[in-house]
Amino acid sequence: MKALVYHGPDKKAWEEKPKPVIIETTDAIVKILKTTICGTDLHIMRGDLPAVTDGRIIGHEGVGIVEATGNSVSNFKPGDHVIISCITSCGKCEYCKKGMYSHCEKGGWILGNLIDGTQAEYVRIPYADNSLYPIPAGSDEEALVMLSDILPTGFECGVLNGQVKPGDTIAIIGAGPVGLAALLTAQFYTPAEIIVIDMDDNRLEVAKTFGATQTINSSNGKAVERVMEFTNNKGVDVAIEAVGVPPTFELCQEIIGAGGHIANIGVHGKSVTLHMETLWSKNVTITTRLVDTVTTPMLFKTIQSKKIHPKQLITHHFRLDQIMEAYDTFGNAAKEKALKVILTN
Amino acid sequence: MKALVYHGPDKKAWEEKPKPVIIETTDAIVKILKTTICGTDLHIMRGDLPAVTDGRIIGHEGVGIVEATGNSVSNFKPGDHVIISCITSCGKCEYCKKGMYSHCEKGGWILGNLIDGTQAEYVRIPYADNSLYPIPAGSDEEALVMLSDILPTGFECGVLNGQVKPGDTIAIIGAGPVGLAALLTAQFYTPAEIIVIDMDDNRLEVAKTFGATQTINSSNGKAVERVMEFTNNKGVDVAIEAVGVPPTFELCQEIIGAGGHIANIGVHGKSVTLHMETLWSKNVTITTRLVDTVTTPMLFKTIQSKKIHPKQLITHHFRLDQIMEAYDTFGNAAKEKALKVILTN
Amino acid sequence: MKALVYHGPDKKAWEEKPKPVIIETTDAIVKILKTTICGTDLHIMRGDLPAVTDGRIIGHEGVGIVEATGNSVSNFKPGDHVIISCITSCGKCEYCKKGMYSHCEKGGWILGNLIDGTQAEYVRIPYADNSLYPIPAGSDEEALVMLSDILPTGFECGVLNGQVKPGDTIAIIGAGPVGLAALLTAQFYTPAEIIVIDMDDNRLEVAKTFGATQTINSSNGKAVERVMEFTNNKGVDVAIEAVGVPPTFELCQEIIGAGGHIANIGVHGKSVTLHMETLWSKNVTITTRLVDTVTTPMLFKTIQSKKIHPKQLITHHFRLDQIMEAYDTFGNAAKEKALKVILTN
Amino acid sequence: MKALVYHGPDKKAWEEKPKPVIIETTDAIVKILKTTICGTDLHIMRGDLPAVTDGRIIGHEGVGIVEATGNSVSNFKPGDHVIISCITSCGKCEYCKKGMYSHCEKGGWILGNLIDGTQAEYVRIPYADNSLYPIPAGSDEEALVMLSDILPTGFECGVLNGQVKPGDTIAIIGAGPVGLAALLTAQFYTPAEIIVIDMDDNRLEVAKTFGATQTINSSNGKAVERVMEFTNNKGVDVAIEAVGVPPTFELCQEIIGAGGHIANIGVHGKSVTLHMETLWSKNVTITTRLVDTVTTPMLFKTIQSKKIHPKQLITHHFRLDQIMEAYDTFGNAAKEKALKVILTN
Repeated sequence: MKALVYHGPDKKAWEEKPKPVIIETTDAIVKILKTTICGTDLHIMRGDLPAVTDGRIIGHEGVGIVEATGNSVSNFKPGDHVIISCITSCGKCEYCKKGMYSHCEKGGWILGNLIDGTQAEYVRIPYADNSLYPIPAGSDEEALVMLSDILPTGFECGVLNGQVKPGDTIAIIGAGPVGLAALLTAQFYTPAEIIVIDMDDNRLEVAKTFGATQTINSSNGKAVERVMEFTNNKGVDVAIEAVGVPPTFELCQEIIGAGGHIANIGVHGKSVTLHMETLWSKNVTITTRLVDTVTTPMLFKTIQSKKIHPKQLITHHFRLDQIMEAYDTFGNAAKEKALKVILTN
Repeated sequence: MKALVYHGPDKKAWEEKPKPVIIETTDAIVKILKTTICGTDLHIMRGDLPAVTDGRIIGHEGVGIVEATGNSVSNFKPGDHVIISCITSCGKCEYCKKGMYSHCEKGGWILGNLIDGTQAEYVRIPYADNSLYPIPAGSDEEALVMLSDILPTGFECGVLNGQVKPGDTIAIIGAGPVGLAALLTAQFYTPAEIIVIDMDDNRLEVAKTFGATQTINSSNGKAVERVMEFTNNKGVDVAIEAVGVPPTFELCQEIIGAGGHIANIGVHGKSVTLHMETLWSKNVTITTRLVDTVTTPMLFKTIQSKKIHPKQLITHHFRLDQIMEAYDTFGNAAKEKALKVILTN
Repeated sequence: MKALVYHGPDKKAWEEKPKPVIIETTDAIVKILKTTICGTDLHIMRGDLPAVTDGRIIGHEGVGIVEATGNSVSNFKPGDHVIISCITSCGKCEYCKKGMYSHCEKGGWILGNLIDGTQAEYVRIPYADNSLYPIPAGSDEEALVMLSDILPTGFECGVLNGQVKPGDTIAIIGAGPVGLAALLTAQFYTPAEIIVIDMDDNRLEVAKTFGATQTINSSNGKAVERVMEFTNNKGVDVAIEAVGVPPTFELCQEIIGAGGHIANIGVHGKSVTLHMETLWSKNVTITTRLVDTVTTPMLFKTIQSKKIHPKQLITHHFRLDQIMEAYDTFGNAAKEKALKVILTN
Repeated sequence: MKALVYHGPDKKAWEEKPKPVIIETTDAIVKILKTTICGTDLHIMRGDLPAVTDGRIIGHEGVGIVEATGNSVSNFKPGDHVIISCITSCGKCEYCKKGMYSHCEKGGWILGNLIDGTQAEYVRIPYADNSLYPIPAGSDEEALVMLSDILPTGFECGVLNGQVKPGDTIAIIGAGPVGLAALLTAQFYTPAEIIVIDMDDNRLEVAKTFGATQTINSSNGKAVERVMEFTNNKGVDVAIEAVGVPPTFELCQEIIGAGGHIANIGVHGKSVTLHMETLWSKNVTITTRLVDTVTTPMLFKTIQSKKIHPKQLITHHFRLDQIMEAYDTFGNAAKEKALKVILTN
């Protein structure tokens, strides 16, 4: 089969690889129908994740058709259409039992990282019963690709951890795909005001069409001032960090109100300064989280009942064998006005 | 009347001051029976809190007898014995209605800070109905002084915010009075293991008698190693910071387990480094809080039913007019093996 | 002034009464701008509430202008426009401090019940600071009348107690004003499906325009069958009872799914049969609640930000001096297709 | 092997049965070390559970040694000592993923009910990875038999669902084994007062030694009066029903305070009367639950750290082949002063 393979920093190829086979009784082999590229994949390609080694097939998102199942798989059978979760859950370790699949002792984020991933014609999914989700006939499968990673990430790490409530004033810092996923799912809880902050006017325009009630371009250094003005100097109830660099985390600290929640989604490469000299008495809560995908069934219901329309996140389409070109487009997201790209096998 | 008055850094005096009078209809005048000294008072005396100005009567803890009440006070009448809360709550602003009395628009921590306090023969208590608590006849009033500040602080900021659960392994960093208050009240939730970490062997001995199941003297730099060993490298479920300096906050980050809670109690004067490069994916929650004293009625019931014995925190007794001497003792806490001192009027 | 006065079962009059005056320092006198009639008022008029005695001015909803305030009122001053809450909260008893204003030791539901109410030109509001809410200039005051009672009742007793979650399938039994208020506010949490059940086709039509995704006319006795069909025999996640008679409570028990919540709003006059022989192992939660109005500030924000449009609940308008006619209309709600009527002074 | 076999109402025998074998890849065969008898087993023997058919081996509690495992079992291997949970969890259905193992689509309570159980020399455990719990070397295995059913039942259905809090006044109605398990585990949350109500003075004596602060013998019909007296007519914060008949459920309704929780544990055979005519405005929560055993790991930690001593629940010991005699003893619990009996293989 063909697959997108990492060969060290800045080297990747769409090349022939052996088709995966069942190894454990809990495995399934899935033929990919549609997959996508994640910001994390770009990091991998730059060599930022040393755990990813030469020869690895990349990708941790997608929908497909079950081709084969191990003996103990009981939730799925060949022919079933499925969503592939970016997080593999064994369903029987201490962490899985607590709903913290991200820290599964045998799974977690391994697809396209420690084992071969989904940017390929076929993929082996360990612990299939707990790591795949069924797609009923007639569903819009393209929209459901957004359930592999980006929607649960925005929702769990940003919205749920931030404890967004009806009537809240919330800020989302970063209007990239994951920030926009937080924006879409934050509206499940009907905040009164959603302020989206970014440095790219195009993304802020998109944020408006997705439900932002205020947008702020922070490139002039006046975002804090603007937020405090808008909130009568009270600050926001929830600040969702969807970038992952020190300045945006700093911004969250400056705009958070007393009793507020800072919910981090961003993947940070460096430490940040935490202003405990002012925060110690401010009754704030700061959370971090690697997505658990424990809300996938809940999110699935909101999509099927048309409460959200995750297709809004999809800007570009390619055939799977055009993936090198898709990487170029996604890698120039600002110029290409790209959010999520769909690759169809 | 006589009172302990701040006259600028390192200058204080036990001197004559006018007896307070009712100013607002919601005030009460309380004759002090017993008061105590808080670590914060030592900070004030060193000039660390510029909001406290020359001439201020210090102190925010105590029990007393109501001497007079304003016209709209209905919960109390002259002669009632009361606990004075360190936090003044108006009961009718946005924050009080949410139970966040610490940020009361007209109150919060003002006693012995922005208005005259309790280290005096009499004190004026604003919003008496919401800031005093009744003491039934026959109660041990000395024990109840611990309800003014230290018990709710350890409980709310450390134990409740840390979400201590039955079976948890928790660590308390700092075995001073507030760390020990967290230790006493953490046991309300029956954690399996309570590790107390400090650099003073005497305080660690006290911690053992208060219920610590493990103690670690961190002065040799091996606390992290010891905790990780004890927890099979999983780290703790809850880390309660009860010191307020960067190294102890750093320690909390190093020992916290995946999914864990870091609950800050310490009053920090400087920013700290937050290791988001490792914490971002660790599903941790970090909380800060100025005590709200919203749990005072709950804590009162646990004392009256002898579930905790806060008198354990009291090591020294003085007459109120010996307060200069009491400050010396409390200021040399390590040498004097002092926790809380009681001053009786 | 003129007021609507109860004179025993089925006797009421719009007649002259003395204008109320400040009695306690915490009182305010409010000139009524707009008021409405509640289903409870009809019960009172039939003599169902013996606590309401001859001579009582009825009504517990409305908006108005503060005319005078007692000495200790600090949140309001004459001239302020205010929402009158149906629940009076002293802000300083055990229950108020817990946010359970409905059981306030000195307040609770007393307006138009134990003390004179709002269907009058003026009303005295005890504990004004905690029982009134400010209306900013430029607000739509008619819509805000819905915040006095009906919206918090539907929201707190039905939606919050029912713990409605994104993706849930919920049922609301009863499409009268309070059931419709639950329908509007349930959408704050984005359930996937909202089934509304009633015996009046007109009300079911209204429910559809308010956001019901399914409606069932239960008069043919097949509501249970229909719900089980629609839910693949799983039953609903949340059943909100908004009628208050044994058959509707029975219906809730028959359609509730394992792990589900039955949230009662209805005012019941009789006991019901609880089928513990089947429910004991079904992991269900049943809640009751007299509205606390503790969510009024939250609901206010959702209205000001146009997340809900409570004016949808208003079907008829009268002058306050036409109140006898308004009672006739509201008393024939089905025929008149009446939901809430607005009386303007 | 030998096993206790049900042969229809009032007929049981200790007789030869084929030793169980692995059927599914997720099975384990466990050699029983210790088992016990549950009140439910007595119901089965009386013919109250028609789903239990002639020939069934009874019993759903015990500890043992793994003898064999199916191919996909990875948490256990032959020779491991294990606790057998009364609830079988597949770990991969909708309910298991929500932690509601009691309603597992393929499991739930099936042992000694729909499949052969633990009152035998060997038992087959389906979904072993999710339905067994490891016992470390050196543990007190007899105490751990209490983790199969009774402790999680008292804790989950009574204490957790009742939301017992520090300082609460709670009542436990029924001082049989499961009521006593609620009594032991309620103390994890440090209620101020625990009132235990029963009609058997011996059991009330036992309750006192287990931590009850008040006991009431309800046989004189004055239990309500006594509770209201003791609570200054406020009623209790939590009422735990551990009997399962209408009069005890009635009692719970009469003693529950405003805002309180009624947590049902009892297995009810009949409907009860729910007094909605008074409860509708009392802000109460009523819960039912079949134990999920989701807290087994938490409870295990509290036992290993000696926070509770479940051996207190064990009153009698027999060899497994004396099980007919053990049934006689347990069936005459009052006379024999029996709580839990241990049968050793």
